[in-house]
Amino acid sequence: METKIKNPKTRQEHDSIGTKDVPAEAYYGVQTIRAAENFYITGMNMHPELINSVAQIKKAAAITNFEVGRLDKKRTDAIVRACDEIISGRLHDQFIVDPIQGGAGTSLNMNANEVIANRAIEILGGRKGDYSIVNPNDHVNYGQSTNDVFPSCGRITALKLLNRAKEQLERLYRALMEKAEEFDDVIKMGRTQLQDAVPIRLGQEFRAYATAIRRDITRFEHAKEEMSSLNLGGTAIGTGLNADVQYLQKVVKNIALVSGLDLVQSYDLIDATQNLDGYTSVSGAVKTCAVNLSKMSNDLRLISSGPRAGLGEINLPAKQNGSSIMPGKVNPVIPEVVNQVAFNIIGNDMTIAMATEAGQLELNAFEPIIFYNLFQSIETLTFAVCTLVDNCITGITANREHCRDMVENSVGIITAICPHVGYEKAAVIAKEAILTGASVRSLIVRDGLLGEEELNVILNPYSMTEPGISGEQLLDNI
Amino acid sequence: METKIKNPKTRQEHDSIGTKDVPAEAYYGVQTIRAAENFYITGMNMHPELINSVAQIKKAAAITNFEVGRLDKKRTDAIVRACDEIISGRLHDQFIVDPIQGGAGTSLNMNANEVIANRAIEILGGRKGDYSIVNPNDHVNYGQSTNDVFPSCGRITALKLLNRAKEQLERLYRALMEKAEEFDDVIKMGRTQLQDAVPIRLGQEFRAYATAIRRDITRFEHAKEEMSSLNLGGTAIGTGLNADVQYLQKVVKNIALVSGLDLVQSYDLIDATQNLDGYTSVSGAVKTCAVNLSKMSNDLRLISSGPRAGLGEINLPAKQNGSSIMPGKVNPVIPEVVNQVAFNIIGNDMTIAMATEAGQLELNAFEPIIFYNLFQSIETLTFAVCTLVDNCITGITANREHCRDMVENSVGIITAICPHVGYEKAAVIAKEAILTGASVRSLIVRDGLLGEEELNVILNPYSMTEPGISGEQLLDNI
Amino acid sequence: METKIKNPKTRQEHDSIGTKDVPAEAYYGVQTIRAAENFYITGMNMHPELINSVAQIKKAAAITNFEVGRLDKKRTDAIVRACDEIISGRLHDQFIVDPIQGGAGTSLNMNANEVIANRAIEILGGRKGDYSIVNPNDHVNYGQSTNDVFPSCGRITALKLLNRAKEQLERLYRALMEKAEEFDDVIKMGRTQLQDAVPIRLGQEFRAYATAIRRDITRFEHAKEEMSSLNLGGTAIGTGLNADVQYLQKVVKNIALVSGLDLVQSYDLIDATQNLDGYTSVSGAVKTCAVNLSKMSNDLRLISSGPRAGLGEINLPAKQNGSSIMPGKVNPVIPEVVNQVAFNIIGNDMTIAMATEAGQLELNAFEPIIFYNLFQSIETLTFAVCTLVDNCITGITANREHCRDMVENSVGIITAICPHVGYEKAAVIAKEAILTGASVRSLIVRDGLLGEEELNVILNPYSMTEPGISGEQLLDNI
Amino acid sequence: METKIKNPKTRQEHDSIGTKDVPAEAYYGVQTIRAAENFYITGMNMHPELINSVAQIKKAAAITNFEVGRLDKKRTDAIVRACDEIISGRLHDQFIVDPIQGGAGTSLNMNANEVIANRAIEILGGRKGDYSIVNPNDHVNYGQSTNDVFPSCGRITALKLLNRAKEQLERLYRALMEKAEEFDDVIKMGRTQLQDAVPIRLGQEFRAYATAIRRDITRFEHAKEEMSSLNLGGTAIGTGLNADVQYLQKVVKNIALVSGLDLVQSYDLIDATQNLDGYTSVSGAVKTCAVNLSKMSNDLRLISSGPRAGLGEINLPAKQNGSSIMPGKVNPVIPEVVNQVAFNIIGNDMTIAMATEAGQLELNAFEPIIFYNLFQSIETLTFAVCTLVDNCITGITANREHCRDMVENSVGIITAICPHVGYEKAAVIAKEAILTGASVRSLIVRDGLLGEEELNVILNPYSMTEPGISGEQLLDNI
Repeated sequence: METKIKNPKTRQEHDSIGTKDVPAEAYYGVQTIRAAENFYITGMNMHPELINSVAQIKKAAAITNFEVGRLDKKRTDAIVRACDEIISGRLHDQFIVDPIQGGAGTSLNMNANEVIANRAIEILGGRKGDYSIVNPNDHVNYGQSTNDVFPSCGRITALKLLNRAKEQLERLYRALMEKAEEFDDVIKMGRTQLQDAVPIRLGQEFRAYATAIRRDITRFEHAKEEMSSLNLGGTAIGTGLNADVQYLQKVVKNIALVSGLDLVQSYDLIDATQNLDGYTSVSGAVKTCAVNLSKMSNDLRLISSGPRAGLGEINLPAKQNGSSIMPGKVNPVIPEVVNQVAFNIIGNDMTIAMATEAGQLELNAFEPIIFYNLFQSIETLTFAVCTLVDNCITGITANREHCRDMVENSVGIITAICPHVGYEKAAVIAKEAILTGASVRSLIVRDGLLGEEELNVILNPYSMTEPGISGEQLLDNI
Repeated sequence: METKIKNPKTRQEHDSIGTKDVPAEAYYGVQTIRAAENFYITGMNMHPELINSVAQIKKAAAITNFEVGRLDKKRTDAIVRACDEIISGRLHDQFIVDPIQGGAGTSLNMNANEVIANRAIEILGGRKGDYSIVNPNDHVNYGQSTNDVFPSCGRITALKLLNRAKEQLERLYRALMEKAEEFDDVIKMGRTQLQDAVPIRLGQEFRAYATAIRRDITRFEHAKEEMSSLNLGGTAIGTGLNADVQYLQKVVKNIALVSGLDLVQSYDLIDATQNLDGYTSVSGAVKTCAVNLSKMSNDLRLISSGPRAGLGEINLPAKQNGSSIMPGKVNPVIPEVVNQVAFNIIGNDMTIAMATEAGQLELNAFEPIIFYNLFQSIETLTFAVCTLVDNCITGITANREHCRDMVENSVGIITAICPHVGYEKAAVIAKEAILTGASVRSLIVRDGLLGEEELNVILNPYSMTEPGISGEQLLDNI
Repeated sequence: METKIKNPKTRQEHDSIGTKDVPAEAYYGVQTIRAAENFYITGMNMHPELINSVAQIKKAAAITNFEVGRLDKKRTDAIVRACDEIISGRLHDQFIVDPIQGGAGTSLNMNANEVIANRAIEILGGRKGDYSIVNPNDHVNYGQSTNDVFPSCGRITALKLLNRAKEQLERLYRALMEKAEEFDDVIKMGRTQLQDAVPIRLGQEFRAYATAIRRDITRFEHAKEEMSSLNLGGTAIGTGLNADVQYLQKVVKNIALVSGLDLVQSYDLIDATQNLDGYTSVSGAVKTCAVNLSKMSNDLRLISSGPRAGLGEINLPAKQNGSSIMPGKVNPVIPEVVNQVAFNIIGNDMTIAMATEAGQLELNAFEPIIFYNLFQSIETLTFAVCTLVDNCITGITANREHCRDMVENSVGIITAICPHVGYEKAAVIAKEAILTGASVRSLIVRDGLLGEEELNVILNPYSMTEPGISGEQLLDNI
Repeated sequence: METKIKNPKTRQEHDSIGTKDVPAEAYYGVQTIRAAENFYITGMNMHPELINSVAQIKKAAAITNFEVGRLDKKRTDAIVRACDEIISGRLHDQFIVDPIQGGAGTSLNMNANEVIANRAIEILGGRKGDYSIVNPNDHVNYGQSTNDVFPSCGRITALKLLNRAKEQLERLYRALMEKAEEFDDVIKMGRTQLQDAVPIRLGQEFRAYATAIRRDITRFEHAKEEMSSLNLGGTAIGTGLNADVQYLQKVVKNIALVSGLDLVQSYDLIDATQNLDGYTSVSGAVKTCAVNLSKMSNDLRLISSGPRAGLGEINLPAKQNGSSIMPGKVNPVIPEVVNQVAFNIIGNDMTIAMATEAGQLELNAFEPIIFYNLFQSIETLTFAVCTLVDNCITGITANREHCRDMVENSVGIITAICPHVGYEKAAVIAKEAILTGASVRSLIVRDGLLGEEELNVILNPYSMTEPGISGEQLLDNI
């Protein structure tokens, strides 16, 4: 007989490890508490979208179990309602396990099982902790294993986040294309290796950025495909032990319905349970996009450098004071944050590769760190692109005259002369121009290599920015 | 005349960019709001210890400015009191800028300047926003620049976090050494390349882990030295422009007093403002420790594998149910979380290297991402080591009989025979033993290579785990 | 008048930088020598396939220039013949520039221009160095720039290497599938988190590896697409300055003919000249494959551990003595080398990402290090897979009895009991079994939970490895 | 009876795996051939310094074995002589195993044992392959294991390479300090975040680079300490089994004598055999240096950008034609190669961390890839620094007038005005200056904020580059 007077603010729960007090009002239970105690690593919570995803999977599993006659209607309805509440944003504070956790996600899965079970118990009029009404393992988790639930959660979450990222990339693409048009007539010096090269139009530069982003968008499409197959139904190790065969055939269709996402069941459930290369691949696509964004941001910072002792070709919109000590200083803060997000994504990609590689035999236990990093990568990229569009790209203006002056004053235009006088003579002129400060044009005229009129044709700035030999008509064919 | 009726819940503030509404009750001001709007990247706040560090620096700067006659007593006292409140944990919710931000930390610096100014204004009986009383730039930031304040904050914060990490590593060292003693008589098979090698004692293995951690502790000491010099006083670019020379000489001493840390001024302030290799170096030390922890965790998971179809040499304490589907399963969740923290730290190290490399000319604008990653690395390592000690190492038990059985049953003991019969003969015996399942001992006796008594001496398990030729006394010298 | 007596073993050449002695017999010239002097970094040579690729491009350019009337027939024929010699493997020793070089590949491009020019001069009966006959810049490099030649070389080379890698991956896939069939009846314990889980068939494990490799093959297909568009014709910065318009339209078709590869011209030549994200993406695919290979290699090493104190489920073929001190020891050397190749590829991927990110404005000058790392990644993966197939996978044998014994002796089979007795009761049985060493079966019978006959159905090893509830027919529906 | 007629060009050797033909003239034997067949990965050879190191260790081991009475004088002398030949650069072509190899270095160790044995056999008048005279395992490898030989080789090699790198860094330090002096009077604009900040002297910038390199030199000293302890004597797993106790005490002293390096025996041989964190730490130091070099190279490329459309503050020496299409173009090829070497080192660091982490139990089998990457990192850094000094730093010239013009024309000098007029007023002036193109000086005079004479004092360019408030004497104390 139990004589111990219970603390009214706690209830007692037990599991295979032993007995433990749980706050009476908590929807989570003993297993969640153990996990929270074992893993205080970041002090943060799981990503809210991951919590939604696990609730969607639990809902789909309950519906499927009902359909195949493994769960009664009463419990099914209660579980579904509990899941819907979570999906609508409620009870998220009951998910208390750290995003970096040992155990391949069992902590999150059990956290979900316990919260859903206790909420379902309440819905059915019971008291939290009375698992005879709805049991976290035997009912909420029926036919499932952490090892098929958690990976599937991760993929669904990644899909949702990729969709949002893609939207922002589309916005960026359009903003860049608008600038490409706006700046199509701004002729400026192109630079290779930071040295003056040949003329280009500012609009061509923006179009090139847009083209790169277009490729990234395509890669995000591929990335979504990588995430669209689930190992749900594979249970513990992908063999499907304890999963009703009908359940196995239906559950992914139901999760597709519940989530509104295009989802299929993995072709080889054993492979899908242990090999997480899909995440490495997706992270690679995100990283590739980050590399493009960072390169573009570097360029924007370079060509907006100044205002007087820099390149000064464009102006980024002033978004905040740049300095606490230097009045009037405005810094390229938005591209700078994009750079930093990119650096972080590149580091995350390494973590994801290592964690993927570290999987052993039938399972990769390191999904939590993969998810933590991948979701952060996708989401910070999304937010960074959003601020890049709104607070930078759309407000960029060009210093047209300064750009044109630099072209006219440049030595690099000698390249267009080259087909007319040969590389070696051109090089001599170029060298003299650089040393003496003279203009290329004047030296060519002085040496009688070409006449003023010919030079007007050859050195037409616009034609130097388009394919072809500038002044081709002046050239005898061989 | 301003006729606009003001919103009682907001006050208006302006800066170089323009005018903006600020919540009337907010201690932060217009520049903070702009920063918060520009950078919504992680949705999180700056590390609390970084907030404390900036308050300590602002306090030390105010004291120093007072000492050198640049700030009056009234303002100084008010600023110091405001800083002390922050250091004691108050007003942290007023630090609303994202940890990943553009602008080299100006956003945090101005957030601090504004919060401190407004709190000091209140202390002096003024109304928030009345910067004639205490001005964020001209008083709180006097003699400072983001470019000396923010790097110094980062170093102070790193020092504090490194100290905490070192404490946990010391605990881990002691816990491992205790196990080394406890298991000193547990003889087991050593394995190289996962193949049976020669005997070792479990205690020797734990002592080896401890030795590695001891090295890491030494590296953390070096790491602290890397962080102990501050560029405070260098102002915008390290030349010290606008820093009173006396202030420059005193301010680091004052921040040392305020923080209780061993701090010196950087020898070359220009270098210290632009080159952040110190962070790369510290991150390298943290990563090296992470690598050791991960290797050890891998080993613990390996030798505790089973319970029946694994190596089963040790038992990790059961900390939570291991599976939602497989009853009774207990997993090595604590080492697993250590692995994941290590993978994350290794990725962070790459981010830090990239961000360090990306510095340009007089400043590295990418300190925010360096801080974000470095602080996370140190702190997650600290927490991971803490749970490793408390929830794993101290509770490990050994399966002594099973360990001994594997030694006696092994072929690897043939190595001790080798000096007595030569490598080639030994190899033949080994091969036969492996193929037939016979014991090494029986084959040697069968072939008359050595007698039973000699074998008893040579194959003494303990002596095989210590330096020297086992049964050396039986060996004729050449 | 030049009175200096010339060294008969050298000839003098000059360029914009000045005059320099060149070995009289050398096909390379002054610019190559400068490059070789500037860059002694690895002491190695460019990848031979890259040398072939540049020759193919020079050949295609010459043909195109002839077709559009910019190069006469005599020079065209001589250049084409010189290129063909290089493609057939001759003159490779004349390519003396280091693979890690500054200058965006100009050194290799000029090395090629000079070697081809001098060989063409010889063919035309001239003396090396008499560039009036065939000029490296004005004839061999006509209509080209390093900035379109070198990137195009890289892509063609990557394509060739990817093709070879894919062939080896196809072989690996087939080898794994053969083993999947051979081992389809070998029942063994599945393990998650290195702890005994539920039964699986060894063949299922090999099929899972094969499935992962199949995905990698698909990713290599995508990777090839990333490499199939060339910026040839874009010249210096992608604007196509100095490229005859007809040349621009024809040159990629000609390089496709010359190389036999599917190639198209990049849609946006400016983008294609400056943004190298395609390499990051391809490296990501190679890395993802490396991760799969490394995980598989880890597994092979784990389950072949022993021979007596390990898991001992399979035997890898013995390929060499494993130890210089431990007779008879055979180590998993082939999987080990695969692991190391994977680690190297993962590091290379980081380098490639950094180098891609570092591009500035109209050009990425860091292609040499990208090529060096990418080609190494693809090629070492190719060779590693080759030895993995030939020296490991095909020779693997299974220890069938030992595998089966471990299943029968396991506690993990309790999972199949779970749907019949509930999770909680099953957990109690499991715990007792682990503690006492008793068999799960005996405890269930003792407690009268299920009868022997029922257990025979439920615990049928094969059915435990297939989807469904083992002994479902014994289960009342709810 | 063996009737098979032997191929005169081969000899037959056998090992545990079986019999194999060996080229009759080869010094290597059967085990080396197997290794070469198993591992064709890079197609390259081991680093020559690693080959020297293994010969030094074999020599020291032979001497020690002789001293402790385990090896006779005749064999000792022959082995020592064979080793000396290798150390002097002979027989390197007999080391045919790939640097990336499975098996923890056994392949290299056996390659060395066989080459030394066969050469010693020759010296003693025998025929290659007659291992009764000198046996690779029983004599050359006596008292050793790959597991103590190979790690010790790696550390000795790293030490040698670190010494060479340090020499080059010292040269770089001196070259930078000379430039710091030469450019001490060149006043230029400092830039933060690429935006004009406040004046600095070019010499100060070079001194800052020098200071950073000085720190790197100190880190290389620490790195050498990490490498100075050897696990030689630990044999297979660090327990010292089969190592004569006297041998164990003497062997490291002898290798110190043979190599001329400061070496000690590791305190805990078991730890030293399995934990390779020392390499991670050393790689971290090399990476940190690479980061500094890359940042400096980025700066050099930035401030030498131009010649006309860039910052144009300095000129790098012209080392080669920069373009095959743009005449006269000279590119910053030396800093560019330094960048690329840095990127490669950063990637290598990742590989080294992964390989270190992957060690299992008593051994880390992945040392070959660690060595391959670490040696490459140190050596390419050495060569890159060498060319950076010789072909870049020492030849840099400054464009003094252009630098000064940019300062005088700048808005950033407003910062020096700030203490005299307050941040807010200064910001208004700055904004107007930027918008209108007016000079800061003229606007201040116009507004009567300060007089010309005061401005002459405050805006003295040199004093703006030194600590203190410019024009402090004009300032009333509060």
